[in-house]
Amino acid sequence: MENNRINVGIVGLGRLGRIHANNLRNKIPNINLIAACSVVDSELDYAKSELACEKVFKDYDEMVNDEEIDAVVIVSPSSLHCNQITKALEAGKHVFCEKPLGDNIEEMEDVKAAVAAHPNQVFMLGFMRRFDPSYQYAKEIVDRGEIGEITLMRCYGIDPHEGMASFVEFAKNSKSGGLFLDMAVHDIDLIRWFTGKEFKSVWALGNNIAYPELDELGDTETGAALCRLEENKIGILVSGRNSAHGYHVETEIIGTKGSLRISNLQEKNLVTVLNDQGVIRPTSQNFPERFKDAFVNELEAFSEYILNGTPSSITVEDGIQGTKVALACGLSLENNEIVSVN
Amino acid sequence: MENNRINVGIVGLGRLGRIHANNLRNKIPNINLIAACSVVDSELDYAKSELACEKVFKDYDEMVNDEEIDAVVIVSPSSLHCNQITKALEAGKHVFCEKPLGDNIEEMEDVKAAVAAHPNQVFMLGFMRRFDPSYQYAKEIVDRGEIGEITLMRCYGIDPHEGMASFVEFAKNSKSGGLFLDMAVHDIDLIRWFTGKEFKSVWALGNNIAYPELDELGDTETGAALCRLEENKIGILVSGRNSAHGYHVETEIIGTKGSLRISNLQEKNLVTVLNDQGVIRPTSQNFPERFKDAFVNELEAFSEYILNGTPSSITVEDGIQGTKVALACGLSLENNEIVSVN
Amino acid sequence: MENNRINVGIVGLGRLGRIHANNLRNKIPNINLIAACSVVDSELDYAKSELACEKVFKDYDEMVNDEEIDAVVIVSPSSLHCNQITKALEAGKHVFCEKPLGDNIEEMEDVKAAVAAHPNQVFMLGFMRRFDPSYQYAKEIVDRGEIGEITLMRCYGIDPHEGMASFVEFAKNSKSGGLFLDMAVHDIDLIRWFTGKEFKSVWALGNNIAYPELDELGDTETGAALCRLEENKIGILVSGRNSAHGYHVETEIIGTKGSLRISNLQEKNLVTVLNDQGVIRPTSQNFPERFKDAFVNELEAFSEYILNGTPSSITVEDGIQGTKVALACGLSLENNEIVSVN
Amino acid sequence: MENNRINVGIVGLGRLGRIHANNLRNKIPNINLIAACSVVDSELDYAKSELACEKVFKDYDEMVNDEEIDAVVIVSPSSLHCNQITKALEAGKHVFCEKPLGDNIEEMEDVKAAVAAHPNQVFMLGFMRRFDPSYQYAKEIVDRGEIGEITLMRCYGIDPHEGMASFVEFAKNSKSGGLFLDMAVHDIDLIRWFTGKEFKSVWALGNNIAYPELDELGDTETGAALCRLEENKIGILVSGRNSAHGYHVETEIIGTKGSLRISNLQEKNLVTVLNDQGVIRPTSQNFPERFKDAFVNELEAFSEYILNGTPSSITVEDGIQGTKVALACGLSLENNEIVSVN
Repeated sequence: MENNRINVGIVGLGRLGRIHANNLRNKIPNINLIAACSVVDSELDYAKSELACEKVFKDYDEMVNDEEIDAVVIVSPSSLHCNQITKALEAGKHVFCEKPLGDNIEEMEDVKAAVAAHPNQVFMLGFMRRFDPSYQYAKEIVDRGEIGEITLMRCYGIDPHEGMASFVEFAKNSKSGGLFLDMAVHDIDLIRWFTGKEFKSVWALGNNIAYPELDELGDTETGAALCRLEENKIGILVSGRNSAHGYHVETEIIGTKGSLRISNLQEKNLVTVLNDQGVIRPTSQNFPERFKDAFVNELEAFSEYILNGTPSSITVEDGIQGTKVALACGLSLENNEIVSVN
Repeated sequence: MENNRINVGIVGLGRLGRIHANNLRNKIPNINLIAACSVVDSELDYAKSELACEKVFKDYDEMVNDEEIDAVVIVSPSSLHCNQITKALEAGKHVFCEKPLGDNIEEMEDVKAAVAAHPNQVFMLGFMRRFDPSYQYAKEIVDRGEIGEITLMRCYGIDPHEGMASFVEFAKNSKSGGLFLDMAVHDIDLIRWFTGKEFKSVWALGNNIAYPELDELGDTETGAALCRLEENKIGILVSGRNSAHGYHVETEIIGTKGSLRISNLQEKNLVTVLNDQGVIRPTSQNFPERFKDAFVNELEAFSEYILNGTPSSITVEDGIQGTKVALACGLSLENNEIVSVN
Repeated sequence: MENNRINVGIVGLGRLGRIHANNLRNKIPNINLIAACSVVDSELDYAKSELACEKVFKDYDEMVNDEEIDAVVIVSPSSLHCNQITKALEAGKHVFCEKPLGDNIEEMEDVKAAVAAHPNQVFMLGFMRRFDPSYQYAKEIVDRGEIGEITLMRCYGIDPHEGMASFVEFAKNSKSGGLFLDMAVHDIDLIRWFTGKEFKSVWALGNNIAYPELDELGDTETGAALCRLEENKIGILVSGRNSAHGYHVETEIIGTKGSLRISNLQEKNLVTVLNDQGVIRPTSQNFPERFKDAFVNELEAFSEYILNGTPSSITVEDGIQGTKVALACGLSLENNEIVSVN
Repeated sequence: MENNRINVGIVGLGRLGRIHANNLRNKIPNINLIAACSVVDSELDYAKSELACEKVFKDYDEMVNDEEIDAVVIVSPSSLHCNQITKALEAGKHVFCEKPLGDNIEEMEDVKAAVAAHPNQVFMLGFMRRFDPSYQYAKEIVDRGEIGEITLMRCYGIDPHEGMASFVEFAKNSKSGGLFLDMAVHDIDLIRWFTGKEFKSVWALGNNIAYPELDELGDTETGAALCRLEENKIGILVSGRNSAHGYHVETEIIGTKGSLRISNLQEKNLVTVLNDQGVIRPTSQNFPERFKDAFVNELEAFSEYILNGTPSSITVEDGIQGTKVALACGLSLENNEIVSVN
């Protein structure tokens, strides 16, 4: 680390990878994006031409062993996360990894052990909603006790229907993680973050009324789960892939003295249109738009954890619990029964 | 008056006349609508078949001299208002008259004298917005001092564009009262009601960008007036005939400690539609819809003034001032100069 | 029935009874409220002095056998509903009964048989939300197919916290019907009305974080149920007794092509207050305020069903299903298991 | 300029100066902030310690003649703007200058000549609202013709009342530019930008109801101006210093086919609070918060104009017209007469 600037290598330059890479390059003054790793040639070309990365790697092991690199940012396919995290930690690097931590409980426990074995390296998971200005503002209100104690939380995560046709095509050839692992992991994390409580049991329902062909493919378009948390607090999850009006992420926090709603109506910006439809608020259309600031803020936090030697506010346990709850929802949906989380 | 029920005769059964007549018949328990007067045969047929009026008159003088009638409700063309009010008062009847009081200052002064000469008869002018639940709620907030002292009021009154084509046809054959007398009289009354102050001087602008043919017809589609009131309070009027999203009546009251907005966004009801346009609040489309309750409430108030022997909260002076300000705006628009109101 | 006016007797003049009675007297032109029945003297005094009822009864049987009476409106305690309905039908009267139909399945089946045995008499249950202008507007949008097919509905019914202290006192002495029967019956009816589907199974959760003393009393403050309907449509119910901001009734309808929200944010009227708290929309505080129009409209419909000889749009089966689902939620909450509805 | 990075010197490190400086340092990858100039020692200390500026200057002439510097960013007191712009242009530098361009017509004309004499250097004025994402979104809608032709614009610019006490103190010792030059210059620019038309004449009103002591000091708390533009388009300006709910910047654009409202209700973020006040949207409290993105975006645009050799979208003429209209409003307020702008 020279001049307090952290040298970073990124792995994975797909859609989200490029968002992170550009933020690392242009928006985080304390970070130097010097390296990129991918098995896809065009992604390495992008790293050289657009990101001005000095070093590009086809082999992840090579990158994590490069001495110049201080930290690794992992935006590869989910199934690779656990293995790549462990390797980077063992090579002495700080690690930022996109969610989900993984989809396999055993592998995630291995990561937990690896993180514990390297207490001086930052490990952070990309639950970026915690860094969204609106969620942070809500968290402060909750922490000041202004809405009393939380009794119920309701979280929506529904993708825009524009992506639906291509998702059906995708689902024909490969398994998604299932509706709840795909869509609800962020919501599960929000419920744990705001309430400070763990999930105990869940019951999930789903249907494919909009896309009946998904039934055969074993996937789900619209789903909901009712969740019992510690102290009988209640969590409601609604997940879907077919929102007509855009990318719908909404959170409600009901407390004994008041309630909060975050993104109750998905405003895109501050413009209101009045035309022959009525009074219209345009809506956010996708996650890069909705969470533009959050993606920058989480990487800024990552750099500060490294520079200040403080541990990450998002831990490996957060990742494990998020996946466990999502898998329990999936199992409940499959078997139509109440499923215990731990 | 038998059993505390007031016998009412109505004159004029056009669009608004029928609204009043049906409210009188079905919604105001203390009123008996027994008579109707019109020069139009089909309106008298309507009075017999739909309103079950026992008596119908072609001649207004006959109706006001009918001994059974206690009160007259005037919904005839504006130019007839003053004369009909005076006749009814002289015949000993209570009088409710639709706005505007008139368009001729001299005639209105005559009405004022007639009202003064019959202090035991109720005279009430139909500034129904004062009876709208939202305006009443706002008035209570203002009167409790919760927004401090009023410094500025802004009032919009814009008709839906659906009516525009037929208005252009109408304007080819006859003179409307002009944009401000047509549209702003209610707004002028609201400013006087909320501030308790009179208008001192106005400057008005207008254009016909949407309907240039109105230029030749000497009428105006969109206009605005800046108004100086007593104590330098400020009034802003925006009037128009071409609102794309519906009937737009909006009022803002800025005080030294806070502000109120009434009907800031013209919600039609409590439904929100989320579709590929975004988040939509449907809007009110016309005055009978928007002011449905107000039209009932004002007639209820009229009946109570009569039964309780209390004077009307809306006076002939309110009518005179409303017209004076509207005429001053029209004159200002015509001559492009600041016009004093009194 | 004289002159097409229906002579009505009402039983029960508590809070809601008086609302109905005043509407019958003043707002429904085709109805003559001539009689009232109550075991409470002060209620009969009210009937005479305020409602001008010609006849008052202490004995229900006497009232239903009065030959002058055409129809009975039942606003008595829920446990009496079934018996009173049957008696009135057998006496040849039309019947309007407040919700819930009852809390005992067997009794409700008896009512069903009585209704079937008197096909020419109107029987109507007071699910007044179906007559709220906003719900009616939403129903038209759904019926026109504008949001596609319904996949999920979410319904909130939460009483204002003002009533909470008195509810705790009440619960010490007597059993409420339980949270879901108390609060969710209207929501269950809305889901059945909008989707046209029946409930299959439910899982309910609850807590008393705001009022732990309710645990001992065997009642619940905040609850939620996840419900599977026919065709795997999903219903979410949230019920509570402790809303800080007022009377919170909210409904969301997610369809394959769009969504609707009714009363998403509980606007009281069209006023927006801007003060040092921010931008505030005042909220409805109780059901008489929120559903003022619906209470009138449902009685108007009742009178039209009678006069036109058409059957009620709300049937005894609607009442039975509503109670069955609510009882299933209660059972699920008690036993923490998924409960089938039929 | 090395490696396509522009070396920038800034003059003025007050509140707004520090916002610009931090953006230049951290948010604009193509810019190197290498120098700062101020007559205040503490500001130069800040430049060295917080901004890592290599060079600091007490003398502006010295800075503009430094050969390493490519561009100058001027955030000094308004009265110095014109002189400093001219000097920088003559020294061959690109120039970004905060609004207003100046308060003296003659000086501004000199700047205009200097800009014309250096056509290859970028000159840009900081009308940052044009770079706010919501205003940009609105501009695209207008430019696509979706609201037809603009007939009327209404612009509010009202400072939060928190600043009022200190403003009164300030006004005792020195002259502000007057309400309209202080507050409305951005609004005037928006009207010119959206309509593409120039102002012809104005009438302005004002009062000091909240702070009567301002009367003696010759300043104004609340003001409004009605403005006639080319083609009879109408502009309404409301300016103030005493907004109870925060920093109130609101713009309405009425077109022949629809309307737009930008920041109709000053939402701070996406959080809605429901408590015993009702439904609350917290509001923006100051310009750095409301226009955080706009301040970054305008400097990004400045750097791109320089690197691409394209002229600035905001010209010296925009600055001249903005000041002329604001001065005309001030004159109108002083003399209570209609004032022509050119």
